Amino acid sequence: MAVMEIVVIPMGTGKPGVSEFVAGCIKVLDEMGLKYQLTAMGTIVEGSLEELCEAAKRMHRVPFEMGAPRVVTSIRIDERVDKELHIEEKVKAVEEKL
Amino acid sequence: MAVMEIVVIPMGTGKPGVSEFVAGCIKVLDEMGLKYQLTAMGTIVEGSLEELCEAAKRMHRVPFEMGAPRVVTSIRIDERVDKELHIEEKVKAVEEKL
Amino acid sequence: MAVMEIVVIPMGTGKPGVSEFVAGCIKVLDEMGLKYQLTAMGTIVEGSLEELCEAAKRMHRVPFEMGAPRVVTSIRIDERVDKELHIEEKVKAVEEKL
Amino acid sequence: MAVMEIVVIPMGTGKPGVSEFVAGCIKVLDEMGLKYQLTAMGTIVEGSLEELCEAAKRMHRVPFEMGAPRVVTSIRIDERVDKELHIEEKVKAVEEKL
Repeated sequence: MAVMEIVVIPMGTGKPGVSEFVAGCIKVLDEMGLKYQLTAMGTIVEGSLEELCEAAKRMHRVPFEMGAPRVVTSIRIDERVDKELHIEEKVKAVEEKL
Repeated sequence: MAVMEIVVIPMGTGKPGVSEFVAGCIKVLDEMGLKYQLTAMGTIVEGSLEELCEAAKRMHRVPFEMGAPRVVTSIRIDERVDKELHIEEKVKAVEEKL
Repeated sequence: MAVMEIVVIPMGTGKPGVSEFVAGCIKVLDEMGLKYQLTAMGTIVEGSLEELCEAAKRMHRVPFEMGAPRVVTSIRIDERVDKELHIEEKVKAVEEKL
Repeated sequence: MAVMEIVVIPMGTGKPGVSEFVAGCIKVLDEMGLKYQLTAMGTIVEGSLEELCEAAKRMHRVPFEMGAPRVVTSIRIDERVDKELHIEEKVKAVEEKL
């Protein structure tokens, strides 16, 4: 299990706001049944590398379907071979040390 | 008010885990009195551009003080001139459209 | 044609340097026959969304095969529907305005 | 000496292209006399942590001055305590291993 953060930025839409586009991207994750968390700066998703890459590809395509002429998608994938990574556990590991 | 996401990665520490280093970086935000949220993939901070850059600089230096020989820090700053951005409001704007 | 930047960071290797790992990742691009440019901060690759995602997945796996216990991979994909993006043209577009 | 990659994305401009904005950001680096390299996916800059943060702050402000209502700036800073990092040397270190 790996954890990915994804940020999909539609460009050339003529509006500074992007929440509708983000909502459209989130639907991909609901359809795929992946566990995710929406944050102020992106969406954090849990899954296998295969699932995460598939989700990223589909999410990247959403703004085009909604009319955006350009999309810049940023992804960061964190994976460990020595233990499975999960959204809650990663946060807890830091909180225990604060 | 802008919102920043920051990820500080210590390298060459000989351990795959980084939670101690992240905890050290978080102390900078407590000391500066900035509002933040810890996520599974980074830390989200609210403040003026000036405050955010100062926080980023100090957080980047923490792993060196803790013994790491190399640090890679990723920052993303989101700022709007037409309205102030806040951590909760950004998430709400998307949730309303889901 | 889209353009991707990819940065693969092996963690827990005990060494601050990562050039061997980056060289290993680059071999994936040679094998796939994709056009790329090595920069001081990552690797820029040209291809279809499908090719770029496949390359990213394979490159992310390389450090594990070389012994790293953890890998953090950052990807940014830039795609336009109104015109094909190419590595050289993107740089030229800016240089003409300097 | 550290190395930074910076990507400044103006949003809500109504145009998918951003090369004018990027050119405006580059002027900051010329004014500050910092060494940089323009790539297809961002700008790579060499300098002290202090200089890089100052440059990032000024570059982030440029699209606002040019009329953009929103700016998302991504920065990645790579710094080592055991040796100075330079743009060319970083690329050479990988090329020698290919």
